[in-house]
Amino acid sequence: MAVTPAATPTTLAPEAGARIMAWADALAVHTEQPGLLTRTYLTDAHHGAAAQLAEWMREAGMTVRRDAAGNVIGRYEGTSPDAPALLTGSHFDTVRDAGRYDGNLGVILPIACVAEWHRQGKRFPFAIEVVGFAEEEGVRFKATLLGSRAIAGTFDTSVLDNMDDSGKTMREVMRAAGFDAAQLPAAAHARQRVLAFVEVHIEQGPVLLNEGLPVGVVTAISGATRFIVELEGLAGHAGTVPMDMRRDAAMAGAEIGLYIEKRCSGKPGLVGTVGQFNVPNGATNVVPGRAVFSIDIRAGQDAEREAAVNDVLAEVERIGARRNVRVQVRKTHEAKSVPCAPWLQSQWAAAVGRQGVPVRHLPSGAGHDAMAISAIADVAMLFVRCGNGGISHHPTETMTPEDAQTAARVFADFVEHFQRQQ
Amino acid sequence: MAVTPAATPTTLAPEAGARIMAWADALAVHTEQPGLLTRTYLTDAHHGAAAQLAEWMREAGMTVRRDAAGNVIGRYEGTSPDAPALLTGSHFDTVRDAGRYDGNLGVILPIACVAEWHRQGKRFPFAIEVVGFAEEEGVRFKATLLGSRAIAGTFDTSVLDNMDDSGKTMREVMRAAGFDAAQLPAAAHARQRVLAFVEVHIEQGPVLLNEGLPVGVVTAISGATRFIVELEGLAGHAGTVPMDMRRDAAMAGAEIGLYIEKRCSGKPGLVGTVGQFNVPNGATNVVPGRAVFSIDIRAGQDAEREAAVNDVLAEVERIGARRNVRVQVRKTHEAKSVPCAPWLQSQWAAAVGRQGVPVRHLPSGAGHDAMAISAIADVAMLFVRCGNGGISHHPTETMTPEDAQTAARVFADFVEHFQRQQ
Repeated sequence: MAVTPAATPTTLAPEAGARIMAWADALAVHTEQPGLLTRTYLTDAHHGAAAQLAEWMREAGMTVRRDAAGNVIGRYEGTSPDAPALLTGSHFDTVRDAGRYDGNLGVILPIACVAEWHRQGKRFPFAIEVVGFAEEEGVRFKATLLGSRAIAGTFDTSVLDNMDDSGKTMREVMRAAGFDAAQLPAAAHARQRVLAFVEVHIEQGPVLLNEGLPVGVVTAISGATRFIVELEGLAGHAGTVPMDMRRDAAMAGAEIGLYIEKRCSGKPGLVGTVGQFNVPNGATNVVPGRAVFSIDIRAGQDAEREAAVNDVLAEVERIGARRNVRVQVRKTHEAKSVPCAPWLQSQWAAAVGRQGVPVRHLPSGAGHDAMAISAIADVAMLFVRCGNGGISHHPTETMTPEDAQTAARVFADFVEHFQRQQ
Repeated sequence: MAVTPAATPTTLAPEAGARIMAWADALAVHTEQPGLLTRTYLTDAHHGAAAQLAEWMREAGMTVRRDAAGNVIGRYEGTSPDAPALLTGSHFDTVRDAGRYDGNLGVILPIACVAEWHRQGKRFPFAIEVVGFAEEEGVRFKATLLGSRAIAGTFDTSVLDNMDDSGKTMREVMRAAGFDAAQLPAAAHARQRVLAFVEVHIEQGPVLLNEGLPVGVVTAISGATRFIVELEGLAGHAGTVPMDMRRDAAMAGAEIGLYIEKRCSGKPGLVGTVGQFNVPNGATNVVPGRAVFSIDIRAGQDAEREAAVNDVLAEVERIGARRNVRVQVRKTHEAKSVPCAPWLQSQWAAAVGRQGVPVRHLPSGAGHDAMAISAIADVAMLFVRCGNGGISHHPTETMTPEDAQTAARVFADFVEHFQRQQ
């Protein structure tokens, strides 16, 4: 690792990193399946984790409440009572067989910092609210961002009728857990009470790892466009149809895939993926008459994504026409990017720099709670290096105590220097 | 269609084409499933077709016998009794839901010609044996070319224990049908009794159709090499893994597929096909960590196929190394090509030319009975134009009465001018 300038001191104790790692381990005990980490919305494991977070919050000098969505909210008052809050946090639900840092890190890291300020009796001219969002991954009810949408006032109540695998509706499960869906509107935070929302999150990718950097400043949560493409050529005998008379659907798909790969390469923040590719009923000795594949294109900047999408769609048409293969393209998803507010990014960058770490800006290709909160506040994110090749949503997701310490120092520095938007 | 010179007369009556088409229709009545044509080895439908062929053969002045494999053999004696025979024929079993010309055409067309010679009292200085091979497709017992292998003396008796879907062994089915597997060796023809084997067959491809030609002279039955390729890269999040850090197994497969297509293009007779292509458990938002696909490479000339195979395998390694994707290549099949004897090809070409048809040589990418018979005799084939885009193994396989007439004229001309190998 490169030699970096000495970090500007913060009030953070040098053992914060170790504490964060220990808390992540302790929180991972709350799981639906022993031996692996699965913690979906409003299960016993989920309640256990919520209680644990609330306990740590209280010990850190925060008042704790739960809202109607099950979010755990710890409030650390500012120098004047009832001041508007700097909001931070992330989700404490997980995917199945998850890693222990995705989401959870963004809850426990701020609690660890608040605990330090509480110990020192330090307060700021604004309150700090740390939110453990109850649901982000969408595993149990096939609907994502439930916790942050409740706080943003954008909760879609139609999903209350979604059922889990056992046939229980979300509404029933909430009621049984003591949460009243009718009270969801009251969970919404007022825009004027929120100075900003910042989220610390493990990168879930290899960029920081490959560049030897512990943290990075997120520029935007990428927008995404997805398609399912069906190609129909003409099946034929692999031995008797000469190459120049073929209408091979699979080779048309291969050409499209490689075009997407090439079009999206060399442009930081732009990615294009063919994640599904199948020749239905394919046989070794038959020229493929059909091929079905998916396209997923994302970029931090919508204009860049839209330009790539347009180029890809035009190329799909061209390749289909040239190969005499019929093309059906169905858009299955489209979401605009959520930019991180420049004024917050620059404060993150200043904090990173003061802590002696080279400043790296990068987009987030994955979705996060900050997307939902952007409806009521400017948002920004700090990424923390993800070990093991950048693997996440997997038990081998990993990070180091040193990086936890660095991220906590950067977060503390950010808060200690935080300036409201002018 | 181009204006062609007037055909040299043969002894063939001008209605032979219509008769062949009517016979093909009549034979198609013998099916296991009403409404579509399925006629597998030694079923009732198969026996019915054999009886019908034997009847037409007898009416055409042939003596008819069935050998231990169930082949139907009609012999039209030459000017001197017991002369060596010019062997011709094809198979009368079918695939499921088949077309009516594949195989069957090569049995009934020679019978129609012999019927003419019989009517005229015309004999040749050699016998003509028309063989209806009992089995070629391999549908019922998962073993192909049973009839022609019996005649070639290369019948693999281990397949007698193969079972059909109802659990009956081939041996049991043969016994029940009155055929004695122990007598199979006696079905073999002696090399010195066979002057040559020629097979008339529908092309099962689009070459003659696209060139506006009714018939073509086959150069060889292509050899084939087949592989299953498994690629293992690294699965990753479609949003968070930048393009230049990916190890995308599907895109490696796409690149290999397009290389195969390019390598095998522009070389008549060489074909390369990726017939199966799958990303196991692929998901829209996951960079493919695995891909599995098949390779099928065929050529009329073995050296050309081997060169293509070697180039493809080298490129598979190069692409795997460049993309950091692990490659596993498993060869699943390899068969050398069976060349059609030049002395027979030139006699076919002369007959085609005399009948006013431009001579087109082309390889056969599909396998045929002639492959097996090549063990005891020089072989050659005449292809007849396949309508409907060249589709075969399908009920919409089609050909015209005019092409049947032209093919019969060419076959009659070939026989009438036949010269033994010097």
